[in-house]
Amino acid sequence: MPIPENVLSELRAVLGERLSTGESERALHGASETFHRAPPPDAVAFPLNTGEVSAILRICNAHGVPVIGWGTGTSLEGHALAIHGGLVVDLMRMDRVLEVRPEDMLAVVQPGVTREGLNTELRATGLMFPLDPGANASLGGMAATRASGTTAVRYGTMRQNVLALEVVLADGRVIRTGTRAAKSSAGYDLTALMVGSEGTLGIITELTLRLYGQPEEVAAAVCAFPTLTEAVTCVAQTMQMGIPMARIEFMNPLAMRAINLELGTERYPEKPHLLVEFTGSPDSVKADAEAFGALAEDNGGERFEWASDRDERNRLWAARHAAYTATLKLRPGATGVTTDICVPMSELPGAVAAAAADMEKAGIFGNIVGHVGDGNFHMLMLVEPGNEAEIASAKRIARGMAERALKVGGTISGEHGVGIGKLDLMRDQHGDDAIAVMQAIKLALDPNNIMNPGKLVPGIG
Amino acid sequence: MPIPENVLSELRAVLGERLSTGESERALHGASETFHRAPPPDAVAFPLNTGEVSAILRICNAHGVPVIGWGTGTSLEGHALAIHGGLVVDLMRMDRVLEVRPEDMLAVVQPGVTREGLNTELRATGLMFPLDPGANASLGGMAATRASGTTAVRYGTMRQNVLALEVVLADGRVIRTGTRAAKSSAGYDLTALMVGSEGTLGIITELTLRLYGQPEEVAAAVCAFPTLTEAVTCVAQTMQMGIPMARIEFMNPLAMRAINLELGTERYPEKPHLLVEFTGSPDSVKADAEAFGALAEDNGGERFEWASDRDERNRLWAARHAAYTATLKLRPGATGVTTDICVPMSELPGAVAAAAADMEKAGIFGNIVGHVGDGNFHMLMLVEPGNEAEIASAKRIARGMAERALKVGGTISGEHGVGIGKLDLMRDQHGDDAIAVMQAIKLALDPNNIMNPGKLVPGIG
Repeated sequence: MPIPENVLSELRAVLGERLSTGESERALHGASETFHRAPPPDAVAFPLNTGEVSAILRICNAHGVPVIGWGTGTSLEGHALAIHGGLVVDLMRMDRVLEVRPEDMLAVVQPGVTREGLNTELRATGLMFPLDPGANASLGGMAATRASGTTAVRYGTMRQNVLALEVVLADGRVIRTGTRAAKSSAGYDLTALMVGSEGTLGIITELTLRLYGQPEEVAAAVCAFPTLTEAVTCVAQTMQMGIPMARIEFMNPLAMRAINLELGTERYPEKPHLLVEFTGSPDSVKADAEAFGALAEDNGGERFEWASDRDERNRLWAARHAAYTATLKLRPGATGVTTDICVPMSELPGAVAAAAADMEKAGIFGNIVGHVGDGNFHMLMLVEPGNEAEIASAKRIARGMAERALKVGGTISGEHGVGIGKLDLMRDQHGDDAIAVMQAIKLALDPNNIMNPGKLVPGIG
Repeated sequence: MPIPENVLSELRAVLGERLSTGESERALHGASETFHRAPPPDAVAFPLNTGEVSAILRICNAHGVPVIGWGTGTSLEGHALAIHGGLVVDLMRMDRVLEVRPEDMLAVVQPGVTREGLNTELRATGLMFPLDPGANASLGGMAATRASGTTAVRYGTMRQNVLALEVVLADGRVIRTGTRAAKSSAGYDLTALMVGSEGTLGIITELTLRLYGQPEEVAAAVCAFPTLTEAVTCVAQTMQMGIPMARIEFMNPLAMRAINLELGTERYPEKPHLLVEFTGSPDSVKADAEAFGALAEDNGGERFEWASDRDERNRLWAARHAAYTATLKLRPGATGVTTDICVPMSELPGAVAAAAADMEKAGIFGNIVGHVGDGNFHMLMLVEPGNEAEIASAKRIARGMAERALKVGGTISGEHGVGIGKLDLMRDQHGDDAIAVMQAIKLALDPNNIMNPGKLVPGIG
């Protein structure tokens, strides 16, 4: 059911021109980076402050209109699709860094600030916000999806790095969660409840984030391995030895081919690679790199090439981050079925090998990359849009990966989240009773089920 | 209202002799380490497994009988007092380490395993569970109260170190939260919701905990400072410089007097002290200690004494941990009014100074100690039992500390928790709307309000 005209009028009274029902805005805010598809939302709102978000939610709650938060639109599991119609609330105009407190190692930002935007503002302070999911995502979206990425092995995910939030609830009430202190034992951890709730419990309108000192020295290395198993075993051993890696990424041969193309080089053999980064003092970086180098050699690592030059290092990481789009280019016209799982470290070699074998067996073409220091890896399978048989095959592979993750004590998603893509796996992971708890919390906070309905929590429409 | 005889019969059918209504068991399970007092519970249950806990809760929920979880009874804010009568469930017979997986750096334990018990079992693996709240608390209790302690500055609190839980809900349903993977973005973070919920949402019957490698080298130092402000400023600078402290504890002159008495020495001057610990490789320990030593000197640090000898180090930490009881001995017959707050680092010197000034002004005798690397500190005021004026004065000081913490963006409790002692400060910290969210969650999960009623969440009896 489209949003009734009288509701649009109420919204327009709050937002004026910043409420759009134009086709192009609706299409832009109905898109998805992956194969998930849904009709566009009925309208798009561009609030400038918390008061406007509150007013929007009050109106939508009174009329039962679905509300979907929107940042950079880079989520991968259809999180922001308006599957039940309704209003997309684009938070990108709330993009101010409100406060930086170097002495307390924290920053307060609006949800539309991107991670790169924040780091640009921080440059002169010697501090940084290290989380890096690849996309230059909005910090509000990163919190809402419990994002992590390449540096989580060192700094943790958004779970560890959001100190406090301002959240507008379904009925327009505004709450503050958390504090500026490093820890608290005063009450339910509402910050942790909101982080990763994918917009189903409220809209985040302000974040207080932990900052870290920019490292004195950074060095990166890339290393080819004869087989996937040797590469991943090297990762497991590195983590078990406690070598403090800043990043440790796995890339399969196809990902390396995409990276070569992206860099315009033939430099990297099409073999399994690890791309690693060390940060710290010059001495600690040297010690860590030597320790890692020895393990890599033990596991048949072929070329242990340093990229201590900043430009080359940046180019390499940029290519790694572009692996998603670069891989898509390997099959022109293709779209991606992407998935991720996270498993205990000892289960990582088996899980990666099984995923690769499944893909090969099905004749599906795709990359495997991953933040393997966490036990987390991704698969991006290239499928032809509209080729239902191929998409179904890719989905079966993704499902098999998730099921194997659950069998070994892992999770159906380390960082991509649930959205609509993994809704049908939630009961398998959590069991009916824990899902009932999630439903009870959802309905206690959003009784009319207007907050991003149909996402994350199965069984409530 | 006492537990009706028919309910006791139902419980006895489950527990047999392991249900006690004897006066001595009730008294033992109705005690509190601090000045908080309440009549003992009506009965005490000693379940042996999750099934029994589930059966107990099903019965109590059907009859509206309050249920209070019990570990080592070392909480400080009256968390486990049966203020509305009911049944205390003593979980200390569920004390098995179920699994240790060194390759995945995790252990699975029952709630009655203590932190020292777990570390004893881990000794041969080269791993440890580093959290150390002082008391040899049960791990279930530590999770329920989001405990932290001296090592949280390095390893985080229970929030960061509980990977997964098994929880029995009010109606007897058993859920599992979290996974064995290092991270997950699949659903609401029920683990974080349960950690710190103080038994008001369910009873924890199993925990999966993160483990860490035992450090190669450990060194401790103790350093006297001319004034409190110089000591605490040294802490703030240490943390801002990013020196990776394993522990950094502040002690005021009175705490040092208690420690001298405890150690049977006159070695430490009755001045503000920092007690610090460095862990890592021999090289990193040396570098960190030198960096800290320079800051201590800048701030007037008087004696920078190393205790690299293991025995002396252990004695010093044991004395620090005994500061609570040692301080109580300074005034025979006294009981303690204890409190803690946590503030952003830049606010720490002011907050400690204000607390010390308040205590002096009121003529109250007490110590100030703290895990100051987190911005967290404690005050233990010695009061005469039954001296209502003195207790009221101490409570006023504690309240003033909490109010000042809130003014500077901190929290009313860094680690002691809420229990009944800080219930009346919860609205001040969170605001009415966030409290309403906590109430909604509590009632969604425990509609009959049987789980540790009257604690943590104000306004629901």
